Amino acid sequence: MSYRAPVDDHAFLLEHVVGLEQVRATAMFEDATPDLTQAILLEAGKMCEEVIAPVNRAGDLDPTHLENGVIRTAEGYIEAYTAIAEGGWVGMNARPENGGMGLPIALTTSVNEMMSGACLALQLVPMMSQGQIEALEHHASDDLKARFLPKLISGEWNGTMNLTEPQAGSDVGALTTKAEDNGDGTYAITGQKIYISWGDSDVVQNVCHLVLARMPGAPAGTKGISLFLVPKRIPDDAGNPGVANSLNVVSLEHKMGLHGSPTCVMQYSGATGWLVGPEGGGMAAMFTMMNNARLGVGAQGVGIAHAAYTHALAYAVDRKQGRVARQGGGTIVDHADVRRMLMSMKADSYAARAIALSCAIAIDMAAATDDATWAARAAFLTPIAKAFGTEIGQSVANTGIQVHGGMGFIEETGAAQFVRDVRVTAIYEGTNGIQAMDLVGRKLMDGGDAAFALLEEIEKQAEASRGRFPNMAGAVWDAAESLREATEWMVGQSDIDERFAGAFPYLMAWGRVLGGHLQLTTALADTPGGARERLARFYIKRLLPEYAGHLTHATEGAKGLFDMSIEELQA
Amino acid sequence: MSYRAPVDDHAFLLEHVVGLEQVRATAMFEDATPDLTQAILLEAGKMCEEVIAPVNRAGDLDPTHLENGVIRTAEGYIEAYTAIAEGGWVGMNARPENGGMGLPIALTTSVNEMMSGACLALQLVPMMSQGQIEALEHHASDDLKARFLPKLISGEWNGTMNLTEPQAGSDVGALTTKAEDNGDGTYAITGQKIYISWGDSDVVQNVCHLVLARMPGAPAGTKGISLFLVPKRIPDDAGNPGVANSLNVVSLEHKMGLHGSPTCVMQYSGATGWLVGPEGGGMAAMFTMMNNARLGVGAQGVGIAHAAYTHALAYAVDRKQGRVARQGGGTIVDHADVRRMLMSMKADSYAARAIALSCAIAIDMAAATDDATWAARAAFLTPIAKAFGTEIGQSVANTGIQVHGGMGFIEETGAAQFVRDVRVTAIYEGTNGIQAMDLVGRKLMDGGDAAFALLEEIEKQAEASRGRFPNMAGAVWDAAESLREATEWMVGQSDIDERFAGAFPYLMAWGRVLGGHLQLTTALADTPGGARERLARFYIKRLLPEYAGHLTHATEGAKGLFDMSIEELQA
Repeated sequence: MSYRAPVDDHAFLLEHVVGLEQVRATAMFEDATPDLTQAILLEAGKMCEEVIAPVNRAGDLDPTHLENGVIRTAEGYIEAYTAIAEGGWVGMNARPENGGMGLPIALTTSVNEMMSGACLALQLVPMMSQGQIEALEHHASDDLKARFLPKLISGEWNGTMNLTEPQAGSDVGALTTKAEDNGDGTYAITGQKIYISWGDSDVVQNVCHLVLARMPGAPAGTKGISLFLVPKRIPDDAGNPGVANSLNVVSLEHKMGLHGSPTCVMQYSGATGWLVGPEGGGMAAMFTMMNNARLGVGAQGVGIAHAAYTHALAYAVDRKQGRVARQGGGTIVDHADVRRMLMSMKADSYAARAIALSCAIAIDMAAATDDATWAARAAFLTPIAKAFGTEIGQSVANTGIQVHGGMGFIEETGAAQFVRDVRVTAIYEGTNGIQAMDLVGRKLMDGGDAAFALLEEIEKQAEASRGRFPNMAGAVWDAAESLREATEWMVGQSDIDERFAGAFPYLMAWGRVLGGHLQLTTALADTPGGARERLARFYIKRLLPEYAGHLTHATEGAKGLFDMSIEELQA
Repeated sequence: MSYRAPVDDHAFLLEHVVGLEQVRATAMFEDATPDLTQAILLEAGKMCEEVIAPVNRAGDLDPTHLENGVIRTAEGYIEAYTAIAEGGWVGMNARPENGGMGLPIALTTSVNEMMSGACLALQLVPMMSQGQIEALEHHASDDLKARFLPKLISGEWNGTMNLTEPQAGSDVGALTTKAEDNGDGTYAITGQKIYISWGDSDVVQNVCHLVLARMPGAPAGTKGISLFLVPKRIPDDAGNPGVANSLNVVSLEHKMGLHGSPTCVMQYSGATGWLVGPEGGGMAAMFTMMNNARLGVGAQGVGIAHAAYTHALAYAVDRKQGRVARQGGGTIVDHADVRRMLMSMKADSYAARAIALSCAIAIDMAAATDDATWAARAAFLTPIAKAFGTEIGQSVANTGIQVHGGMGFIEETGAAQFVRDVRVTAIYEGTNGIQAMDLVGRKLMDGGDAAFALLEEIEKQAEASRGRFPNMAGAVWDAAESLREATEWMVGQSDIDERFAGAFPYLMAWGRVLGGHLQLTTALADTPGGARERLARFYIKRLLPEYAGHLTHATEGAKGLFDMSIEELQA
């Protein structure tokens, strides 16, 4: 395998494009110096290339499986996970008072992206634990924190999210798992949960499940849902895994990809759990974990995009074929259409990465400053980072197969694995359709303030850079102006279905335009005529223009969608 | 499984949109009456739904495999293939004098699309045989025709194409397989070929390989290549499979999808073969087979798109979830974003089908009239039908997973199989990049005559329908005009790399615009306000606008593509 960690791109983006310097100017993150940032990126990159990426194929070829009641991972997984845990990478952004490193989410996002590209299936373990750590930091009692956080942060135990039930997927409010008060400060949890990533495995000593459940007599819908921490083994007084809890893995799903990651059907049979946060506050607490995870999933998409790009590039540089090869001994990288694919892959991966990191910076600034404007920015960017990042992950991985020609369809090359693995990222942590509905619904409930503030920044910067880059700046400005008009249209729709009808193309247009903005920012920060400037030009001239088609679709409204009856759809 | 054959759409397209009436007005196809057309579509649709579709999952779950030297297909494959052969479907468009039905390619394309949607892996058998039959009809000696055509047409034997060698993929001219004259009218074929679909199996009695090889002293490149017919078993005097030839299947590829279809590495060890066509005329003869197959592959993409659509629709109509469900007991089909996905899937499948059938009609007209204008039209449409059809196949199948949410990633639902199976269609019979280069290279060598003639028709029809459909007609006219400008730009580039740089987005724009034209034609033919008119409006308003982004990309030229060095791409 040819995974190469994009350390330089991350360093450039953090230091010169998305604004890590603002984050380190706050008291909360003053330790994240340029030297430390660079050292962390280098160290993480080295681990990804040398320790994690080498186990990626094994996880696909030898899927994690149940063996005499124990979940066995592929060869090398235990060692690679142990390297992640012992390197302190699980607790990167956990608070120092709990044993974490207290680093910005921005830097965590960079590291998570690289780990995802190296081995998506394995990277799910630390990512889910990070989300759980954050949820416990915000919502758990001091006693729970003291018992669970150190082991989660050290990576000895891992964390999972238990939302979905067979009849309750995107509609979490329909769940029926029960939580009955044991009268001793604990609850008895009973029910079945599905799609539980890493619900059990041989890479950790214990598993901490965060489970959404309903107390007897709780109101219907999401208001009646509470959150519980339910460990596989109940910690003893010394804090070590003690007696087994009443829960078990019923089966593992047979999935299209991500074979290295066990996706469990979990059965809770009166399992002991502790309430996290207030009664009925389960959804709010879970959303702490989920928003973090949504950005993380976006970064997963970027990670696979980058991995697929370097993999395809290595093949193209090596593969002799055709006219160019016969004339000059060159390889397919010199064919125009192959070059088009590679440049598109690189430019899109970079743009999606820049968006994810911008979102992370906003989250950090919101945490460090308590400024509502930053919180609104973070909330607005999260669904875009998630959905656009994972759409780019899919399209770039798919192009990676195409660069390989016939070899791409053969599993041995590994190109197909990227496509199969990344597919789930557009689905889990809220499908991309759910992200789009969040964007045009909840995230525009401010009347568009957060959206318009961002558009203002984009347009101002484009305006200011017309002197140096007239064409690029003009293209970005025009795109932002069209997006502003579409946003005004969205905000003007009182019937939510009118917004929902165009939500997904509207989100994709945001991704394209933000990508253009951040590419322009990159070109401005690059040395004149530098490689980054040339890549930015490619993106802005050839990929940005897609926004127009998305926006036309986005503002057509609901009528034409519901114009055909079910019978006509079936005809 | 929920496969439903789109018989009505095919009938409507053939009779009212793409112009089958012109074809049946020719002497060659006068037997293809409306009644016969309808009877064939109904009969094929019934077979696809009842006999072929039911074996589709088995082929994925129990991949075709080598077992003691015999290739074993999945349960039900032999019976399903036998139904295809005994129904006469292999020889649908073979000449009646050879035992075929002599039907138009248009009708064959309809039937092939339905068989592809029912089971892509199995449909490859008749499709490849059809291509071989056509190649032999045009290029083989009477003796070869008499010995091989009846068995191929009856489906008792199947045909394969042997082009690719490990070092010679898209660059066929680099192949090294040898053909030495045995002095008795036969040749000894020696070499290795890869990616041979259905190179052997238990569904037929014998296999006829068409093999590209090079005679001693032949010139380098494609001019030195000849075509040979090399059977697995040499027919005896009674025409039955006789002694085994010196060839064997070395191994089967482990592929991303299409597990039911054996993809063979073939070894020829002095195997006996017969020359087909003149010495050095191998590429020309193979192209007869390949052009037919390219349209066929485009139809495969459409078939999977339609199958994925009906599969996703069945799920959406059944799946209760969320707000709508809680309010009215409805299902996710009533969510706007799900409806957007389903409408897009249906509209795109229909558009790609219409393009494939238009291409087929042009092929039929060229064959029946010997008119060079029709031949040019057919040649121009073939790469578009292939590449656009298979890109739509991929995107629609991928959307099908998304409609399923989390269930889409689980293999049991079958949604993932469509994505894995259809992926190869963008690669084989010439990658979609190769199709695009063919379009802007060879197919514009007439100075754009064929392209401009088609644009003229599109604009004229749009102009004429402004009264009835002002918005739709205006949108199609504008799109055609933009495409005309891009075509003029393409024709004006003397450096072929300038064309190649934008070839793929240019082809995609053609697909979008032709789709718009044929949707408009459909709306004009529909009863006022009918379901087809409403679907056409959805396509033209929401999907057609993508053409603009494609065209911007298409005409940016080569400079920006080669702006980064290999080292910069690797950085």
